[in-house]
Amino acid sequence: MHDRTPQPLGLTDADRIDRLRLIRSDNVGPRTFRSLLNHFGDARTALERLPDLARRGGAARSGRVCSEEDARAELAAASKIGVSLVVPDEAGYPPRLATLDDAPPLLGVRGAPDVLMRPMIAIVGSRNASGAGLKFASQLARDLGDAGFVVISGLARGIDQAAHRATIQTGTVAVLAGGHDRIYPPEHEDLLAALLEHGGAISEMPLGHVPRARDFPRRNRLISGAALGVVVVEAAHRSGSLITARMAAEQGREVFAVPGSPLDPRAAGTNDLIKQGATLTTEAADVINAVAPIMERPVTLGASEPDSEPLDFDAGTGERARIIDLLGPTPVSLDDLIRMSGASPTIVRTVLLELELAGRLERHGGGMVSLI
Amino acid sequence: MHDRTPQPLGLTDADRIDRLRLIRSDNVGPRTFRSLLNHFGDARTALERLPDLARRGGAARSGRVCSEEDARAELAAASKIGVSLVVPDEAGYPPRLATLDDAPPLLGVRGAPDVLMRPMIAIVGSRNASGAGLKFASQLARDLGDAGFVVISGLARGIDQAAHRATIQTGTVAVLAGGHDRIYPPEHEDLLAALLEHGGAISEMPLGHVPRARDFPRRNRLISGAALGVVVVEAAHRSGSLITARMAAEQGREVFAVPGSPLDPRAAGTNDLIKQGATLTTEAADVINAVAPIMERPVTLGASEPDSEPLDFDAGTGERARIIDLLGPTPVSLDDLIRMSGASPTIVRTVLLELELAGRLERHGGGMVSLI
Repeated sequence: MHDRTPQPLGLTDADRIDRLRLIRSDNVGPRTFRSLLNHFGDARTALERLPDLARRGGAARSGRVCSEEDARAELAAASKIGVSLVVPDEAGYPPRLATLDDAPPLLGVRGAPDVLMRPMIAIVGSRNASGAGLKFASQLARDLGDAGFVVISGLARGIDQAAHRATIQTGTVAVLAGGHDRIYPPEHEDLLAALLEHGGAISEMPLGHVPRARDFPRRNRLISGAALGVVVVEAAHRSGSLITARMAAEQGREVFAVPGSPLDPRAAGTNDLIKQGATLTTEAADVINAVAPIMERPVTLGASEPDSEPLDFDAGTGERARIIDLLGPTPVSLDDLIRMSGASPTIVRTVLLELELAGRLERHGGGMVSLI
Repeated sequence: MHDRTPQPLGLTDADRIDRLRLIRSDNVGPRTFRSLLNHFGDARTALERLPDLARRGGAARSGRVCSEEDARAELAAASKIGVSLVVPDEAGYPPRLATLDDAPPLLGVRGAPDVLMRPMIAIVGSRNASGAGLKFASQLARDLGDAGFVVISGLARGIDQAAHRATIQTGTVAVLAGGHDRIYPPEHEDLLAALLEHGGAISEMPLGHVPRARDFPRRNRLISGAALGVVVVEAAHRSGSLITARMAAEQGREVFAVPGSPLDPRAAGTNDLIKQGATLTTEAADVINAVAPIMERPVTLGASEPDSEPLDFDAGTGERARIIDLLGPTPVSLDDLIRMSGASPTIVRTVLLELELAGRLERHGGGMVSLI
């Protein structure tokens, strides 16, 4: 059962190096990467223009541009531990993950070559799960694995671990918040080694990157994004699993939640999800029936869609100043900026991109931005 | 907070006696009572015609017609223990209960005069409930009581008992499967006595009637019918509470269900209800918010609606024989009978009513009937 047949891209080694340099350069995130690549046509040209664009955005000093040596060194080190750096639409890049607006431009992938191309269901939940929660997660994961699905999760303690362990034989994928050589929690290195035989691990972070708190929500978008749907097994109010569920909904993925007693605080989050429309899940069939119609539709690649929104570097000095004046530490929406500045959407987006490359802009949820 | 102001009917003592005689006569149920009353205009005429109708239906010997003495004796005995026998639209008859097609023509009511006219929420669930289930039922009942609702339930062990006990002060109603003097389970006589001060008890059964197994599903339609909605707290697969939930849905009442772990068999029924569309309920606000818009609409009385479907006692012998020939021990639908016999719906209904009065017809759910 394959989610999608990959299209050979014919990416040259030089182009892969350039793309890696671009995404590893300061202040370049997946969305900025995509805008730059679309605008300039290739990563090499974008790299050459980076210092100039950051200067236009008001950078006090130029941000670091990743050197060719550093990129080559990362590729070599990755290769040494069995990690390939793949781009969307290449074999090994999970097809559904490639459809995200903020899909990683290069993804470090490791493990069984086939597993990342198969249809996936994410199972997530509390780190301090109950015995019942762990038992249910194991059973659900096993049943989904037996039905041909790859179970994807975050290698955390509790529910994640139970879901991975139950699917070591059928195929499971761990999504890492740090580099492939910085496993968190460290006691799960054995679990990771065990699951790699039939499963895989993915990370968008460079080798050596130690995961910090803010990397986990960012990582969670990959768990939901690669999957057809996310099952939340146990989750208290305001827990990380609910962030994954919210991201899943924003990404158009199915959200499943396992109910629990109103007196059990570990079920408060999942019961709320069901109230908000998540599918109540007590067995694998609930998941399988819901994703069956989605699997019949072809996966549409973001990269094959009409281009991302265009840029225009011809903003006048007055226009640029007007936009920057409207920005401050309080987040404001892109729509409001366009309306209040009187500038075109393309100009506003371009000025924001320059500010971002200068390290002066912070992006929040829902298209809100603020100055740092 | 009153559900509806009762309309004085000016029912005479003689009419009340006649109605009681009619409903206490053999083979007369609430639906048949209503058809007869609508057709003949008063209970007295219907009583006079009963033996003839049963004979037309092929009764081997005439069914018992309740005598005037028996009816007077029941009224006197009821009055002695504080039970009034009220008809739909009279004070003390729960307004929403009166809207049912099969509302009891006379209802034995007891307790605080006001409580039966207020908006009610039913709370039902397992007799062998878990500690958590009992605790939750108590809390929910208390919160609904504090919000002005009367909690109605079945006086059973487990969830019912917890719901009643928590609302003794705010008002709670017990619906009995037997007569008012045949409390089941007997150890709940104290609970009943305690709840009668601010609450009430209702039964459609004559005094002295010992409840049998088949009386409980019948009773359950009164629990759901009198309420705005039914909350099922804990219920295994195929439990009695699920019958109440199904009746509630058929009656157009709201259905609420309390979630639980998929590993807890006592939550299997409630989780299923939520999958089928019941409102997931973890707190009183879930119930209150859902019933608020319903409370704003006036209660429409079945009795004030256009007449029930008419009868026509002029069926020809051939027509009657054709209909009876189509019947057997296997249930068949009214629609199929009409289609296959070629007789008019009114004639078919009338022949079935005669068979029923003769004690030869059994009615099943969904308009299915069979010969006994």
